[in-house]
Order: sequence, then C-alpha cells, then structure tokens
Amino acid sequence: MKIKLTIEYDGTGFFGWQKQNDFKSVQETVEFAIDKVFADSEKVELYGAGRTDTGVHATGQVAHFEILNEHLISTWEKNISKLADAINFYLADSGVVVVSSEIVPDDFHARFSAKMRHYKYVIYNRRAKSVIYENRAWHVSRPLDVESMNKAAKFLLGTHNLNAFRSVHCNATNPIRTISEIEVYKNGDLVIMEIAARSFLHNQVRITIGTLKQIGEKKYPIEYIQDLLDNKNRTEAGVTAPPYGLYLTGVDY
Amino acid sequence: MKIKLTIEYDGTGFFGWQKQNDFKSVQETVEFAIDKVFADSEKVELYGAGRTDTGVHATGQVAHFEILNEHLISTWEKNISKLADAINFYLADSGVVVVSSEIVPDDFHARFSAKMRHYKYVIYNRRAKSVIYENRAWHVSRPLDVESMNKAAKFLLGTHNLNAFRSVHCNATNPIRTISEIEVYKNGDLVIMEIAARSFLHNQVRITIGTLKQIGEKKYPIEYIQDLLDNKNRTEAGVTAPPYGLYLTGVDY
Repeated sequence: MKIKLTIEYDGTGFFGWQKQNDFKSVQETVEFAIDKVFADSEKVELYGAGRTDTGVHATGQVAHFEILNEHLISTWEKNISKLADAINFYLADSGVVVVSSEIVPDDFHARFSAKMRHYKYVIYNRRAKSVIYENRAWHVSRPLDVESMNKAAKFLLGTHNLNAFRSVHCNATNPIRTISEIEVYKNGDLVIMEIAARSFLHNQVRITIGTLKQIGEKKYPIEYIQDLLDNKNRTEAGVTAPPYGLYLTGVDY
Repeated sequence: MKIKLTIEYDGTGFFGWQKQNDFKSVQETVEFAIDKVFADSEKVELYGAGRTDTGVHATGQVAHFEILNEHLISTWEKNISKLADAINFYLADSGVVVVSSEIVPDDFHARFSAKMRHYKYVIYNRRAKSVIYENRAWHVSRPLDVESMNKAAKFLLGTHNLNAFRSVHCNATNPIRTISEIEVYKNGDLVIMEIAARSFLHNQVRITIGTLKQIGEKKYPIEYIQDLLDNKNRTEAGVTAPPYGLYLTGVDY
C-alpha cells in the first residue's frame, strides 16, 4: 500500500530534507516517527517531492512511502487520515508536522509524478529587522521597488536556459526549465515572490529572488533579467538569497 | 526632550510588557538597552501604550521616555531616527526590536494620548497544528464558520457594557467601552480578527475571540453575543483564547 503525506516543517533546525550521516534531516525525522507508529514492524523509506536545503521551510512538502506488511495494511487502510495524527504524536516538538495522510495508487511517486512545484519567498522590507519574522523572512532594509521586481520577474515566464540562475554546484545536465507562474507583490512590510515550475535547478529560486531584490534596489534595470537569460552567466546574476525566506508551499500531481 | 518609540516584540520569552520583580519584561529590556546607549548618563523610564500580558506579541507597541541631559539632547535631536538603530544594537537577540524613534511634543503621553489601539488575533484552523506558526497563532482543529464569526462580531461595534468580556481580575471601575472596528476574515488556513478601540478591558480581546471561536464551531448561535451584551455575565462568555495568537499592531494619536 502506497501512502502520500503532506508535510510542514520549520527548516531552522534541520540540515535540509535529505538524509545525511551525522546531520539531522527532515526525511530521517519523519521516517523515525513512522517506524515508531509501526512499532518497527516495518522500516519505511520516505521519498520527498523536493529536496529542500538547510534552513528552507515547507508548508506543503509531499512524500510517499510503501508498506507491505498485511497486518499494518489492514490496520490503516480504513483509517488512513488518522495516520497523520499517529505520526504527529511521535513528532511532538520536532519542528515537523504531517498535515495529511492518504492512500495513493501504486504507480504514484512523490518526486517523479510531480507536475508542478510551488515555492514562496518572503522578504521583510523595512529599516529595522523583524523579531516576529526571525528565521521566517529575509530582512532587506533598503526600500524595494516591488513593481519593477514584478515586471522583471515576468521575463522569466516560459521555457528558458536558466544557467545564470543556478548554483555552480548544480549538477543537472540540462539547465532548461519552464517557469509556469511568477509573481512579486507587497503585503504590508512583506515583499513576497510566488513561483511555480515542474522542476527547479539547484538554488534557482534563491538566485532569482536575490537578483530581483537587486533590481528592486535599482542596482540593475528591469531588463537585466533578459540579459542574464541571453548571456547565461551565473557570475553576473544577483546574490543567492538566504534559505530562511524560502518555503516549499505545494506540489501538484 | 520627549522621544516616541515604536516597538515590535515576540512575546514568547517575556512576562508581558510591564516591569515586575524577578520576571523578564519588555519594558525593562528596552529601558536597559536605552540606558546602555546613553552610557547610563541618564536612567530613563519608559511608558507604554498597552500593557500586554505574558506571551502577547506586538508589531506596533508605542512607548515614550524623556531625556533631560543637555549633552544627550544635542547629540540625538538631529539624528533621532538613528536612535532606534543604536538601541537595537543593545537589543540583539532579545526578541525585541525598535522599529522607529522620533521626537514628540512635551505633552505627548504614549498611554494617555492614545486615541485608538489596534489588535489582531490569529487562529490557525486545520486539523494538524502548524510548526511555522508555533507561538504565533492559536491552533483550532475544528473547522470554523468564519462568516458566522464575523456576523456575530458586528454586534460588538459601538459603545457597550462589556462586563461579560473582561477578566474577573479586571479592576477597571467602568466596564463600558467603544469598539470602533471589528472584522473576522479567512486567509488560507488562518482566521484573523482585527479589532480597534480607544481602550480595552483586561483580557477583552482574548475573551472576544474565544467566544467568537465557539460561535464558529456552532456551539453558540450568532445572537449569543447580543445575549452576553444584555446579561453582562462573564461566566457565560466563551473561553479566554491563549496569549500567543494576540498582537498589538498599532496605536493612533
């Protein structure tokens, strides 16, 4: 039986989603809690839709795992929505919570079946830093021209070679990606970017908002984004924004 | 010279705004930082607009203090907006930040000159608790009928005897208050109440949202608010909502 979980986490205390030796990951934390629910009668392996980096948050991460044990299957198949509560019991105070649990078809794969990933990036834009949004938003003190940022963002819509917008450590062989939605807007002192694509390059969202932030500060003109798309040179794009402003908000299948 | 500060704080680590022996308060924390800026050449006394309780947050608390030392006055009167930065230097990692500093007329008083206080209450309404909004919102798992809550809230607009909506420990002699604005609305999984009045009774906002939450859960009908206004009996109103969903968002003068 294949089970899909929707997961929220505060990335602050984790070295990202993916399991690594000696570092606390979200994946391992949730696997550990699931194993507890199943009283270790079956060791599960959890597959996530997005391998978020250290410090990055999620409100809508999706992951799946499979159980084969007949007894476990008959226990949970009629109460699958309660499985989230059971896992959450073992996740108390961990910084992770399972928002929902459901049964999915056997050919479902959290990573490979994903049709669209949604991310949000939050900037706190005023002179003084925010204590309410500490570890939840990037503090930018210079006033941002949000309209210019949004206009610049629109150059990215559609299919492009995004080599300028990926980490030098990105090992994807193909730097072409399709951005389906991108929007930058103001909400009080917050400046929010929402972006959606089937998949992203490494650090793509953080480099995108880092570049848009410098456009908002008038360091670059709006058309600079088009230049980066044409020149494809990472060293010319903006800074990589810090991880704690970034949220994986949802995955569509 | 009288100086007005706008202050934001995460109420989690504080025993409220007001100075008390043996407990860490916001007032004392900020006074201590100001004294550091002035190298203890003058001990200031800070007067806040609202004495928020333990765990209650603020994004727009206002406070004033006075300095008499001529040297300090001449140092800061031309750079008053920089004073916030200087105080913030000593507030690093304290959970408090000064958003702005300005000179005000000598007859200004943060508490007594206030014409309107604005509060916001945030509920997180879904089955699973939120780790992103931990200590930032009240988790209510039963689905809330927000439209009914907003309709019920409107009964409170205007001038009423609010005895049913105050703490049994409230020692205001007059329980009559005027609510100028009240609105309950949904934003994703959040249910937010915004309320404004010249002044509030003790725990008034938390009892108000506690009662509206029970109306949203269909425990009481919409008209129950009117009954409470008529009967004025605290024991019949709803629960007192927890402090960590409450924010003092601004004070008008």
